[in-house]
Amino acid sequence: MASEGVDAYFGIRSEHMRYLTGFALDDGEDRLAGNSGRFLVSGQEVVIFADSRYRLQAIAQTAGARIEPTTHDLAAAWPHAVASLGARRVAVESAAISHELWIELEVAAPEVRLVEAAGWVERDRAVKEPSEIERIRSACAVADRALAAILRRIKPGQTERELALALEWEMRTGGADALAFGVACLAGPDAALPHGSPSGREVRIGQVLLFDFGAMVDGYRSDMTRTLFVGEPRSAELEIYETVAAAQTASIAALEAALGARGPAPSGRAVDAAAREVIEAAGHGEHFGHGTGHGIGLATHELPSLSRAATDDPLPSPTVFSVEPGIYIDGVTGVRIEDLLLFDLTRTDLPRLTAFPRDVLVVGV
Amino acid sequence: MASEGVDAYFGIRSEHMRYLTGFALDDGEDRLAGNSGRFLVSGQEVVIFADSRYRLQAIAQTAGARIEPTTHDLAAAWPHAVASLGARRVAVESAAISHELWIELEVAAPEVRLVEAAGWVERDRAVKEPSEIERIRSACAVADRALAAILRRIKPGQTERELALALEWEMRTGGADALAFGVACLAGPDAALPHGSPSGREVRIGQVLLFDFGAMVDGYRSDMTRTLFVGEPRSAELEIYETVAAAQTASIAALEAALGARGPAPSGRAVDAAAREVIEAAGHGEHFGHGTGHGIGLATHELPSLSRAATDDPLPSPTVFSVEPGIYIDGVTGVRIEDLLLFDLTRTDLPRLTAFPRDVLVVGV
Repeated sequence: MASEGVDAYFGIRSEHMRYLTGFALDDGEDRLAGNSGRFLVSGQEVVIFADSRYRLQAIAQTAGARIEPTTHDLAAAWPHAVASLGARRVAVESAAISHELWIELEVAAPEVRLVEAAGWVERDRAVKEPSEIERIRSACAVADRALAAILRRIKPGQTERELALALEWEMRTGGADALAFGVACLAGPDAALPHGSPSGREVRIGQVLLFDFGAMVDGYRSDMTRTLFVGEPRSAELEIYETVAAAQTASIAALEAALGARGPAPSGRAVDAAAREVIEAAGHGEHFGHGTGHGIGLATHELPSLSRAATDDPLPSPTVFSVEPGIYIDGVTGVRIEDLLLFDLTRTDLPRLTAFPRDVLVVGV
Repeated sequence: MASEGVDAYFGIRSEHMRYLTGFALDDGEDRLAGNSGRFLVSGQEVVIFADSRYRLQAIAQTAGARIEPTTHDLAAAWPHAVASLGARRVAVESAAISHELWIELEVAAPEVRLVEAAGWVERDRAVKEPSEIERIRSACAVADRALAAILRRIKPGQTERELALALEWEMRTGGADALAFGVACLAGPDAALPHGSPSGREVRIGQVLLFDFGAMVDGYRSDMTRTLFVGEPRSAELEIYETVAAAQTASIAALEAALGARGPAPSGRAVDAAAREVIEAAGHGEHFGHGTGHGIGLATHELPSLSRAATDDPLPSPTVFSVEPGIYIDGVTGVRIEDLLLFDLTRTDLPRLTAFPRDVLVVGV
């Protein structure tokens, strides 16, 4: 804050609040909380805006934060809160604050200058502490065990929704505090929807079955995709699978080349390009529309980004991100393989936190 | 739009997109979608911004919407999209758009005037179609059955988390597409947290046990709270319970007085006041910090609001909202009773969509 010339930081995102203050609102809860859970941080103090519903929780979860009672009308509490910190220039999460609230704060305390802050906390969060890595690792282990537990239950005739619920149940009763996100279970042509939701479609012999899922442990998330084959794979789909696996391997090789502090970290753009080249060489360039990977932690998608739109800056270290190339053919099929990697330039290895095998796996027979 | 002098409406909220275009992103999914799922509506056309992940889904779920391919950089697609509609003045959901995106759109197409729009779609959504009421009713029925199904399983020694999961499972396998929100199951002093999350606390004889939960059916949500007694209630808590029930009855009476088109609808503020007076008269005024109720539909909390901060405007009709007074005593106990009511001035009755009894109920013995 000092280098940016501001006295305080006004935070909007619930994962930033948890990261900086300890006060944790569940997914979903933050939608109901309104302006409760917005927060101000100065060099000396943490102020949390909370209405009566959240007051006790905020006191219990923070180390001495001051609670500023508020209603939905946060602007009414704003002048007192900024004055109590002696703040004249306040950095504001401009990508998260609504335009309406920004204008209301400007009107409520015209003498306080609001400064657009983008990515300040995000960049800190991308570099992971050992305790954060351990929680992501735990979440991965819960997810690994859950998929292993349902493998034998996958039979033709079951619906995507039934299988998604079975996988969710294994995670929720197997150590997850919650899901990282809703389980995707997509069979056959549905797998061409990279972010589709499970439907009542029945799984049939000869189809792929794509699971994209993650657990949450102590606020930290996992994310893994496996594409299984229901019955013996057709050779065309096997070829797609091998291409996707080779693309993932190419990205991993680009990362490994930098390990042991042998070189600067590659950029997210370069790691994306490594996977993309393999898929393009196989003639599927236009069937891989999304990025190769994303950071993960308190949010499912966070920095760093591994994509064509990513910067040329070296990746941070240590950090955790997904590597998840895919090939999607409209109305026909889709294959994605996604693992989480711990990228730490000071190590000589590149641990895969998602331990479930990525070999071709035939189920349902 | 004509009366406000705008040519198009730019929408941000996923429930507005579903309401106006049919394209439905799940809870959670909209967090991952970035700017996919923002939309423009003119008198003639619907444009949906969607990246490759969502293209097929958006085509399948809308009636001829045009898909504007986009990346995370929506501003890059903005000039073409607004020009294609011939739009010069565009209403924008100012309470939902980020300040950052507002500024980016202004820069990307300086000739297009952005107009702050607050509450336009919200007011439409508050008045419910019969098909919407039916879906809320279905969601209530799923929730009613789920609570009935777990009653016998409630025993001292079980944890809040176990019971919350059991209730969730009954809803998810009993007709719910998803939860309306995370189940709250709070025992004893935890019930003093109006929005607490279930913990590992074991339920004990002599405690209250508060469940606040809802199902989602075809996008529409239910919401109900029941406070049960584990073992015979102590007289002090029974008294609190009766006060809360009387407060709910007072709000219901205020609503019933207007039925059969006998009078104008009461305001949300008046219905709140009716419950609040009962609680204040019992000496618990400061133990009832939240509002008496909220509309529900595609979102768990929507218009109308029944609270001290609500307007004096008559309630809309037909509409569905909760009536949920509560009394919370820090560190000791909490009681809330919440039902959903169908308020329709043309009817002579006030149907309670949540059918589960609200009498004192003793469990765990």
